[in-house]
Amino acid sequence: MFENKNTTPLSELGEFGLIDHLTKTFPVFHPSTYKGIGDDAAVMNFTDGQTLVTTDLLIEGIHFDLSYMPLKHLGYKSVMVNLSDIYAMNAHPTQITTSIAVSNRFPLEALEELYSGIDLACKNYKVDLVGGDTSSSKTGLIISITAMGQAQKEKITYRYGVKPNDLLVVSGDLGGAFMGLQVLEREKEVFKVNPNNQPDLALYSYCVERQLKPEARKDIIELFEELEIIPNAMIDVSDGLSSEIFHLCKDSQVGCHVYEEKLPADPQTSSTAEEFKMNSSTALLNGGEDYELLMAIKTEDYEKIKGHPLLTTIGHFTEQKEVCNLITGLGQSIPLEAQGWKNFKSGAST
Amino acid sequence: MFENKNTTPLSELGEFGLIDHLTKTFPVFHPSTYKGIGDDAAVMNFTDGQTLVTTDLLIEGIHFDLSYMPLKHLGYKSVMVNLSDIYAMNAHPTQITTSIAVSNRFPLEALEELYSGIDLACKNYKVDLVGGDTSSSKTGLIISITAMGQAQKEKITYRYGVKPNDLLVVSGDLGGAFMGLQVLEREKEVFKVNPNNQPDLALYSYCVERQLKPEARKDIIELFEELEIIPNAMIDVSDGLSSEIFHLCKDSQVGCHVYEEKLPADPQTSSTAEEFKMNSSTALLNGGEDYELLMAIKTEDYEKIKGHPLLTTIGHFTEQKEVCNLITGLGQSIPLEAQGWKNFKSGAST
Repeated sequence: MFENKNTTPLSELGEFGLIDHLTKTFPVFHPSTYKGIGDDAAVMNFTDGQTLVTTDLLIEGIHFDLSYMPLKHLGYKSVMVNLSDIYAMNAHPTQITTSIAVSNRFPLEALEELYSGIDLACKNYKVDLVGGDTSSSKTGLIISITAMGQAQKEKITYRYGVKPNDLLVVSGDLGGAFMGLQVLEREKEVFKVNPNNQPDLALYSYCVERQLKPEARKDIIELFEELEIIPNAMIDVSDGLSSEIFHLCKDSQVGCHVYEEKLPADPQTSSTAEEFKMNSSTALLNGGEDYELLMAIKTEDYEKIKGHPLLTTIGHFTEQKEVCNLITGLGQSIPLEAQGWKNFKSGAST
Repeated sequence: MFENKNTTPLSELGEFGLIDHLTKTFPVFHPSTYKGIGDDAAVMNFTDGQTLVTTDLLIEGIHFDLSYMPLKHLGYKSVMVNLSDIYAMNAHPTQITTSIAVSNRFPLEALEELYSGIDLACKNYKVDLVGGDTSSSKTGLIISITAMGQAQKEKITYRYGVKPNDLLVVSGDLGGAFMGLQVLEREKEVFKVNPNNQPDLALYSYCVERQLKPEARKDIIELFEELEIIPNAMIDVSDGLSSEIFHLCKDSQVGCHVYEEKLPADPQTSSTAEEFKMNSSTALLNGGEDYELLMAIKTEDYEKIKGHPLLTTIGHFTEQKEVCNLITGLGQSIPLEAQGWKNFKSGAST
């Protein structure tokens, strides 16, 4: 990474010059952004509806691996992770702040790459960068992003609010980001043995992109506005489907039936799981980082979403508090297991 | 730190159980806090005035040293650093979010200590913790805090807005936190040579407390409300007085005269500087982390603040753009130097 190029050490720039340099191309989209980068705090006009705030801390070696994660993609994904949390509340993200810490192995050009990804994310999703902060770290790259958003009070969806008989619906498809990670980890091991080996990732392009450049589901929120749907509850699939289902059931004091055969998967996810001799359902149920939206839809809204290409009904909620069952392809009902976060490994946002 | 006690490894708790455990004692003070910890995002009702947001990333070994910084104090100070940025906008902080990453050398009891300091800060300053996030780190402790606040638009003070002839006023006294750091660093070196040596910090208690447990200047904002003063500009002294003066002058396109003899110092700061064979003015002008407020006060407000024990007039602004001079005790005028942040070392918030 940048080893063979003419690079600029960060020590050549003052810290304030650095923030100016990195953020000068960022536009402002929202009238609620009154004063962005450059003072002790950013100032916003939030006079309409409610304000949402979420934050995530991403640490090299824990949440990402720079040996296969390009910095531009990392910048983009870091923003997506946060925007996804705002969309999961059925709200629109409006502003972000970014704090970056880097060790001295990162030249200016590395930070420029990272910020180009943040910039692209801000432009694609029309979000304003209102606060910036760069500092040193001792060992690697640390990224902390806070996202703010806005929504009318009556539209906001929480993890609670599910009613028995609501439909369990998920956007897009699942397990792709997890299988992409398996492919990248395998290529990393191959590279360690033979650095001259050129990986051919073309066969896995969908899964790898799901891992390296996920998109937050802005389109789903817009679809709900168009269809005049407000889910009874919603959460984003960051830790894995099972784990998120448990959150909805726990916070709403309901149970659910999930149909294994209904779980949406891209054909490449299934074929890659097969190649890795992995049960495809494991990837679909427990693989994280898909950043899809999982929601409880009222039965009376079923006609509105039926057959919609972006949404799949994968089950329904029941009155049995916190009893979550997976109905297998053979019709057996087995307890769903949340393998996502039994251990203290990584983080979840609030 | 915790080595000899019966401790609980974090791996024994699920991540979600951990956040619940650490934050269960936190009260809610503000009606604007609609939904705190426990969903994809926190939800606030900001319907009155403007909203302020600031964020800081604090990293072990860069921003703090756990060999002399007790975890409870660290939690407290991490909140203060952020609240200070909100007060510097002449606004009231209302909510914070905290993201913590720790390596596995930290048991549960260490995080409890850290959160007890965050809790105390929230209670003392009436701020709501609305978002929590814990994750792993590879090497040490990382703390990211975002603070939000509220103020009426016409009361918010920026770094720009200074008028020539405005008075340069600072709260409290300066250089104490810097001298406290020198004392603590010296004791650390002594301890390395002789671990049985019991440091006697009583002689330096004021300076050490300024370093380990600073207070954000809520009282100054309340004083301004009482005196009906709105400064033309304000900034907090986190990086050092000189550096902050340059920020005000640059953003307001003015110059200033600062009187060395007027700089407020606690007697202990001066005597400790003397003991360290250090020019006391260096500590006052360039020592950071005092978290005092530095402001431009209109001349017509001078009578209101004259002789007030919390405020000291240390100079005045001039029309000479970005020309900042220090008037020494001997009456000489020399260019002020901002030594605080010439190098890319640590961070500044926005």
